[in-house]
Amino acid sequence: MDVIRVSDPADPRLADYTRLRDVNLRRHLEAEHGLFMAEGDKVIRRAATAGFAPRSFLLTERRAEALDDVVAASGAPLYVVSEETAERVVGFDLHRGALAAYHRKPLPELGEVLAGARGIVVLEDLVDHTNVGAIFRSAAGLGVDAVVLAPRCADPLYRRSVKVSMGAVFTLPYTRLDDWYGGLDTLRDAGFDLMALTPGEGSLPMREAMDRLDADARVGLLLGTEGDGLSSRWLERATSRVHIPMADRDIDSLNVTAAAAIACYELSRFGNVAARDHLG
Amino acid sequence: MDVIRVSDPADPRLADYTRLRDVNLRRHLEAEHGLFMAEGDKVIRRAATAGFAPRSFLLTERRAEALDDVVAASGAPLYVVSEETAERVVGFDLHRGALAAYHRKPLPELGEVLAGARGIVVLEDLVDHTNVGAIFRSAAGLGVDAVVLAPRCADPLYRRSVKVSMGAVFTLPYTRLDDWYGGLDTLRDAGFDLMALTPGEGSLPMREAMDRLDADARVGLLLGTEGDGLSSRWLERATSRVHIPMADRDIDSLNVTAAAAIACYELSRFGNVAARDHLG
Repeated sequence: MDVIRVSDPADPRLADYTRLRDVNLRRHLEAEHGLFMAEGDKVIRRAATAGFAPRSFLLTERRAEALDDVVAASGAPLYVVSEETAERVVGFDLHRGALAAYHRKPLPELGEVLAGARGIVVLEDLVDHTNVGAIFRSAAGLGVDAVVLAPRCADPLYRRSVKVSMGAVFTLPYTRLDDWYGGLDTLRDAGFDLMALTPGEGSLPMREAMDRLDADARVGLLLGTEGDGLSSRWLERATSRVHIPMADRDIDSLNVTAAAAIACYELSRFGNVAARDHLG
Repeated sequence: MDVIRVSDPADPRLADYTRLRDVNLRRHLEAEHGLFMAEGDKVIRRAATAGFAPRSFLLTERRAEALDDVVAASGAPLYVVSEETAERVVGFDLHRGALAAYHRKPLPELGEVLAGARGIVVLEDLVDHTNVGAIFRSAAGLGVDAVVLAPRCADPLYRRSVKVSMGAVFTLPYTRLDDWYGGLDTLRDAGFDLMALTPGEGSLPMREAMDRLDADARVGLLLGTEGDGLSSRWLERATSRVHIPMADRDIDSLNVTAAAAIACYELSRFGNVAARDHLG
């Protein structure tokens, strides 16, 4: 195992770990170098299990032992630093004491992600990494088969998304549409009923809309930007518009992660019902 | 209307607005002075509509007009500041340009909050203000009647909770138990079936547990701390343990706001079903 003690926060070998809270810098750096960050023992283990290749590990003394096996199996360099050095490199108190830089894999083809999928989530232009991570966690936990992202949706492999997803971004298949304008037509051509989640007029309660579907339908759940929701283009190209009924006139919608959780829950229920019908 | 232009960030009249991101300072200051912060036009309007009394308003020039009516009707002083002064007082770029300090009201008695309530949410020791706010928004939107907090649960009137709740913390009745240890017994004595949401062993799928309830049951949904969940004391004093079935073995639970959203959704469904039974 290649253990390298580093005390200079400016050491170029630590460049992957620079200023983790500087979103603009990180976006640029991670895209350019094709890397992403895993933080904390659990998430690092999950990245390893999911078959991602590490570039390096950055651990504080306290943490180095806990990840011994993962580091040893990887062959990647391990940089061991003091808590002070860690803080100066990453820009905040790294109280979990464990970071790893991983190589990204190329995103799969859309056809590969859709093959065999019954229920998928399609995210338009979400901007908040926490929301993207939370939606991946809910989608994976509730049995959604895949996630498809619009070209401008926030990155699921951004550190914050990875962390909030509890590593679900490593295991739930996903890819990105390369065409926003025509993207939904591609999904419809693949046989998906596209349900746009929107509190707007003319939308059906989600459960009612699901009851109208064929038992073997393939369903894509469309979720839009925080605040403004889905674009008019996507609303227009959806197969139907659905909403979660609200009881309180002052609260006209849920936040996107709450709405996504309920919608994925309904989707999993639909999937189960359909599966049971097939069996019977 | 009492318009006061202030250019000195250290002006004592702006003391309510000091260092809004300093959680420890703010907790202390807000508790001591019985105040809370509303941020942004929409939330400020909702606080006013809900009958809270403002102590003062802090608006940038650009924003002063948009809240003209609210300020005029209140009789509270309006401090108009430049964006630079605002930033130096509150400690970040106040891009929404609108803050108001409001007086808290005394929390209602538990009996008052529970009167007539069919479905309530009971939060144990949640620490994250964003989560508390999001749960209030979901609970209000989905028709939950009230929220009851354990003594140490994070404050729903903390700025971040208020904001994320979209003002639901102003309209959804809530109070705090003054006894953590015996608190659940008080709720049981009031006739509530207490469902502890927990992924642990021996818990029923939530929907199944709901199906077993009497149609006129009063239900309290118990949600625990981020990470560790409910305490063993509360698990022990619950009427039943329920979970949301997970499809993915690697994801053994949802985050607490996603779980709360789904649980409130099921609760509202149960309420509707029961209501229909009564009608029929």
